[in-house]
Order: sequence, then C-alpha cells, then structure tokens
Amino acid sequence: MKLRYSPTSPYVRKVSVTAIELGLADKIERIATDPWSADTDLRKSNPMSKIPCLTTDAGDPIYDSPVICEYLDSLHTGKKLFPVERDARFKALTLAAAGDGMTDAGILLLVETVRRPKELKWDWWADRQTETMKTCMAVADAAADSMGTDGDITIAEIAIGCGLGWVDLRMPDFGWRKDCPALADWFEKISDRPSFATTMPKAA
Amino acid sequence: MKLRYSPTSPYVRKVSVTAIELGLADKIERIATDPWSADTDLRKSNPMSKIPCLTTDAGDPIYDSPVICEYLDSLHTGKKLFPVERDARFKALTLAAAGDGMTDAGILLLVETVRRPKELKWDWWADRQTETMKTCMAVADAAADSMGTDGDITIAEIAIGCGLGWVDLRMPDFGWRKDCPALADWFEKISDRPSFATTMPKAA
Repeated sequence: MKLRYSPTSPYVRKVSVTAIELGLADKIERIATDPWSADTDLRKSNPMSKIPCLTTDAGDPIYDSPVICEYLDSLHTGKKLFPVERDARFKALTLAAAGDGMTDAGILLLVETVRRPKELKWDWWADRQTETMKTCMAVADAAADSMGTDGDITIAEIAIGCGLGWVDLRMPDFGWRKDCPALADWFEKISDRPSFATTMPKAA
Repeated sequence: MKLRYSPTSPYVRKVSVTAIELGLADKIERIATDPWSADTDLRKSNPMSKIPCLTTDAGDPIYDSPVICEYLDSLHTGKKLFPVERDARFKALTLAAAGDGMTDAGILLLVETVRRPKELKWDWWADRQTETMKTCMAVADAAADSMGTDGDITIAEIAIGCGLGWVDLRMPDFGWRKDCPALADWFEKISDRPSFATTMPKAA
C-alpha cells in the first residue's frame, strides 16, 4: 500500500497510529505530499486534494481518513478499532466524528487566521470555528472517563488524540486544558502510548 | 428516533433517502432546525452545530451524516447500503467520500460567495472549492456506468445524488452536465427513484 502524507497532518496521523496499532505500518510505503502546493498531482489520487490518500496493493485509491482507517482495520482479524457490536460501534463512530469535527474546525480557523490575507478576515467565521472546537472538546471531556488509554482504544480515541495533538502544535495558546481537565488527564496518558508517542507532530 | 433537519440540507437528504430505502422513515420524528440561527440549541445535540443529528430511542446522539446512515443501515437485516464484502465496501465508502467532498466544497463555496461579507471574499479559496467540486464530479462521472439506479444502490449513489441535487438547487448555473455526460444520465435516472423523487429539495 502507498500513503500520500505530510508530517504534521492530524488526519495522516490517525492513519499512522491505526497502522501501528494493527501491526501494518511496515506494509505502507509513505510518499511525502504538500496538499497546498500549486503543482501537486494529489487531485489525481484524491479529488479533494487532501491527505491522507491510500492506494491499495490492487491500485485502488481510498479516502478520506475515516475510510482509510476502517480499511486498515478490515485487514486483520484481531480486536477491531471500529467496534463490531452496534452500540459500541456507533458510540465510537460518533465520538470519532466529534474528534474529526474539532480538527476540521481547527483547519478552517487556521485557514482564516493564518493563510487568508489579513484584510479578508471574517471574525464571525473564526469565532464559529473556535466555538465548534470548544464544544467538541467539551463532548470529549465528558466522555474522557470512559475513553481507553491502552489496548481498549477505538477510532474515537485515535481521532480525538490526534486532533488535540495538532491543536497543541498549531495553536499552543488555545488553552483547552483548563476547561477540560478530564480530557487533559486522558491526553497525557494516551500520549505515552507507543503509537501516539512515536507519531507526535513536531514544528518544522 | 428523532432527527434534527432542515428542508434543503444535502446531508439531511442523505439520511431521508436512506430511511426511505430501508423502510424506516416512519420511525423517525423530524424536528426542524436552523443550524445558522444565533439562538439554536443544536450544539447541545451535535457539538459541530450541524444537521443532520439523530437521537436514538435510547437517547444517544448520532452524527455526522455518514454515521447516521450507517446506523440506520444496521437496524435492518436486508441488503445493505453499506456493503459488507471488503472490496465493494471500500469502493462504495470512497465514492461516497468523493460525493460528500463535493458537497463540503460546495458549502464552503456558498459561505464564501453568499454568506461572507462581499469585501472579505478571497478568490483563491473560492476557486479551490470550485476545483474540488469539479474533480469530485469527474470521479463520479468516471464511475457513473457502474453506479446503481435501482435496488443495487449504495451509500455512494446516495451521497453523490444528494450532493448533485443540492448543487442544482443552490448553484443552478454551475454547468456540471456538459463536462460529466455519463453522470448527468445517471442523475436523471436516479432522480426518478421514489426515495430521491420524494425528497428533491425546492427553493424556499
């Protein structure tokens, strides 16, 4: 399999953590890709021109990150990161959507405040994304006591942990820990797990 | 089950089409919700403040639209809209992601060109979203000959059909049909299917 990636993408990190958890990391060839570059050919693989994008051994593209992670989870017969039992599955998928929703809002906030020309900023939009990040974090904080830090993790923990790691990287002053103490405790523990510790993003 | 909805949301329509296809529409109580309203309490159910948001009979929230559709698909024992066999499943989920990606870009384009104050528009961003819509449509056009129009549809056809219906509603001059003739033929056929025909969005 081939994976188009960038070193700091939180969505790529979800795939990397998933692959490590499942023992599949050495089956994946990684191809560095800048999705913002004017001359990238990424759209030929993923029409959204987003990373991650996986190409299977049969040559088929798979995107976006939730689909790639579930695909990797289908390649092994051990304990699933996407739970099979209905209640557990949809609890995990909904919490994962909150984690991805936090990250999606964070990306839009970064585009608004860093990439967009200063004179074109719209405070209402930036505030809306900030609010979404905070409410997603509050949902994760409320769930933190039931979230795994060990062999019991699911795609939800991976989405939330990778999202928070990216917030710490790109918005170190966001200050989420004081409003979300249970989530902060959980994040400290999950960050020690090898799949997370070895994929922690670093500023370039 | 209760569903927070708005009449023209393409993501809500995915859930509505799914529910009709599965014979579950009469199990769902619909609650009209404006996600853009300043005083909506939608964030209490969905931290992204987005529709659709489903609440199960047990009182648990489920979001976002791919998760809600898969949840509904888990409630019946007939032919699945989310295929079970691996190759078919990830082909369908990836094509559904392209359909949702088209719609996501369309929403961002609409925010940029209609909701954002005129003096704050950024052409680069609008062009990028337009390009994403076009490449997602091209992917769907290339797949159109293998896409279902009858009892063989999957979540991919639902995502693409609802996305295109929304583009026609909100951007009637987008002009996608001339570049995507196979997709246009398929869309005409799927639009006659009762689940699509009875949920076609209309301008207010």
